[in-house]
Amino acid sequence: MTHAMKEFFKVINLDQVFAYISQFPKVDVEDVSLSRTVGRILADDIIADIDLPDFRRATMDGFAVKGSSTFGASDGNPAYLTVKGAVAMGELPDYTIGPGEAVRIATGGMLPQGADSVVMIEHTEVIDETTIEAYRSVAPGQNIIEKGEDYAQGNIVLSDGTKIRPQEAGLLAAFGKTRVTVYKQPVIGIISTGDEVVAADTWPGPGQIRDINTFTLSGLVQQTGAKPVSFGIVKDDLDTLTDKCAQALSQCDMILVSGGSSVGARDLTIEVLGALKNTNILFHGISISPGKPTILANTNHKAFWGLPGHVVSAMIVYARIIQPFVEHISGIAPQSIRELRRQAVLSRNVASAHGRVDFVRVRLLEKEGILFAEPILGKSGLINTMVKADGLIEIGINTEGLDKGTEVEVIML
Amino acid sequence: MTHAMKEFFKVINLDQVFAYISQFPKVDVEDVSLSRTVGRILADDIIADIDLPDFRRATMDGFAVKGSSTFGASDGNPAYLTVKGAVAMGELPDYTIGPGEAVRIATGGMLPQGADSVVMIEHTEVIDETTIEAYRSVAPGQNIIEKGEDYAQGNIVLSDGTKIRPQEAGLLAAFGKTRVTVYKQPVIGIISTGDEVVAADTWPGPGQIRDINTFTLSGLVQQTGAKPVSFGIVKDDLDTLTDKCAQALSQCDMILVSGGSSVGARDLTIEVLGALKNTNILFHGISISPGKPTILANTNHKAFWGLPGHVVSAMIVYARIIQPFVEHISGIAPQSIRELRRQAVLSRNVASAHGRVDFVRVRLLEKEGILFAEPILGKSGLINTMVKADGLIEIGINTEGLDKGTEVEVIML
Repeated sequence: MTHAMKEFFKVINLDQVFAYISQFPKVDVEDVSLSRTVGRILADDIIADIDLPDFRRATMDGFAVKGSSTFGASDGNPAYLTVKGAVAMGELPDYTIGPGEAVRIATGGMLPQGADSVVMIEHTEVIDETTIEAYRSVAPGQNIIEKGEDYAQGNIVLSDGTKIRPQEAGLLAAFGKTRVTVYKQPVIGIISTGDEVVAADTWPGPGQIRDINTFTLSGLVQQTGAKPVSFGIVKDDLDTLTDKCAQALSQCDMILVSGGSSVGARDLTIEVLGALKNTNILFHGISISPGKPTILANTNHKAFWGLPGHVVSAMIVYARIIQPFVEHISGIAPQSIRELRRQAVLSRNVASAHGRVDFVRVRLLEKEGILFAEPILGKSGLINTMVKADGLIEIGINTEGLDKGTEVEVIML
Repeated sequence: MTHAMKEFFKVINLDQVFAYISQFPKVDVEDVSLSRTVGRILADDIIADIDLPDFRRATMDGFAVKGSSTFGASDGNPAYLTVKGAVAMGELPDYTIGPGEAVRIATGGMLPQGADSVVMIEHTEVIDETTIEAYRSVAPGQNIIEKGEDYAQGNIVLSDGTKIRPQEAGLLAAFGKTRVTVYKQPVIGIISTGDEVVAADTWPGPGQIRDINTFTLSGLVQQTGAKPVSFGIVKDDLDTLTDKCAQALSQCDMILVSGGSSVGARDLTIEVLGALKNTNILFHGISISPGKPTILANTNHKAFWGLPGHVVSAMIVYARIIQPFVEHISGIAPQSIRELRRQAVLSRNVASAHGRVDFVRVRLLEKEGILFAEPILGKSGLINTMVKADGLIEIGINTEGLDKGTEVEVIML
């Protein structure tokens, strides 16, 4: 038997991969302080329990009036208004405004009873202590925000699954939600394997290489809004690796085991999965490059990923395959997911094999106002290709390469 | 005197604003653990102190050989090779490979003396304990990574000012840099002012509104990679506000005081700046909308920003004006700054005044494969317009509006 025969395993395509996402449940929820919510996923619908604002507010400094008192006013024919006093900020005004009357008001002040608009201070002149001239007319509703104009009481203002940006944090503040129910950050266990891999803080001996994948994968996990937990480097030994994986699975919502890209290592990962309880291998092999030998298992409703050891492959598989699984369990609604993409023009031809999706590293270069995507070729074991890369382009399964000059979408890294 | 006269102040354009950036010095540096560096700014050049890798590595499972031993091999005419043993992972191989000889090797293994390439295991068949047939020829250098191929010793691999992504963290790991010198995160003090503003955790009385700007601005500051520190809500009182600003300036690298958009409040901010030592007002007023009444002062080489109180204006001024100042003091190199932008087609006409830059909030909608930017109109005191918005479009100072169908660049929020 040649090894080519032993190589046989079920290779699936990307659509089939993503169909497995729904097998994995969302994480639990927790309450956090509002000041710590930016980037977190809301786990509740938020309902307006008051009108926002809860009163008619001035949006300009000036005089609160009935708009009708100013109709027809102009530079040559000002409206004369009787000033009854001034609105104190943050207080209920003690005035009622009738025709021909005005009250001094600052931006954000509450309009008194009877007033429906504000004449800007720039359009007035003080005649004496109780009289002003207004040189412009204002329509009812002008230079004010109506009660409930921002949000009306009783409405849902934010829904479950929303990723909280600064403006959503501001909205939560407006409704006094200083404690917020959000999804917990998924905890992702990371294990590097390989007898040749040594810790980053050691000096590698002959034939040894420092652990890179723990740091690249941890960084990617952080960028997804999840929490990486490193379980260190494990030797290529069935019992040791099985124990470490079981430990990581008990503490995490998902685990990433990198280093299983070689035939022997992949066999070991499969053996580990065989030794773990309640474990079902969903696939081993995806029709992508790099990253083909990726393994996914469902073990007690948690995803166990076997990742290639090559640094570039492991990063690309995380960014394009695993990240959507992490996002799913994080509770985020699909419309809240943002991917950084840029349009660019391919600077030269890129070959690709039919029957698989190719992810090509590219660097972005601007020349004469045009943004070019320049392919970076290089082995998937070379981290310099990822350091030089600004992003990836994805070449579809039915496409045999792309021509120079093609407009491409660059998925930023 | 009309208030229109009192309104006179120097309004400058965006280019003039950004010319002030260089007045403000970068923050100090600190050493942090490698696992906490993603998103931080490197404050040092990193030099390769070893070759990466430091030895010739296999990139495939198979047999290390002299490529010349396989020349001409094919399915019908295999090369017969004598297997001398196997390379132990992470160890110096105890073999020297001559013509016609091979050693079993796994991905990542160190090539023995004399070997220059690897025949993939899939292209071989085991004949007996010491003999294999190889069905493909390999060229010298094939299926291996050369010593120093990723990075050669002595070269600068990362430079001062680089924002550390997961791949840069991996590169630092590869060179054993488990402690990394990075710029400190700028500390940005945030003060909300206004007699009508109450804390988010209180129930607002008549005419009162909860503090929103502290949370929106803190979130934006966090997204820039800096550290927000809230100094709470300060009443519109000269002494109180001056004291609070002095306190914030002593603890922070920059301060943002919001709420000074109304005429009276802006006057107060100017008075506060007059009361602070070593303070120079650089401008008050920018030819933008919203956000025109923005104030910048240099006080003891720190930026003091007076921001409009309107929630939308304050956010847009931060995102478009202040953020570049924060980035500058954070030490980031311009080429490491990434802005999330999307190309879209304007869904309807947008008016804009000549002589100022307009920032228009837009929502993105995909219809029949085309991404449309739909303007969101609404007063700059309404936070719902920012919650609905996916981004902003910028209409240039010499442009009087944009027509429906124009291709626009959306700056994502």
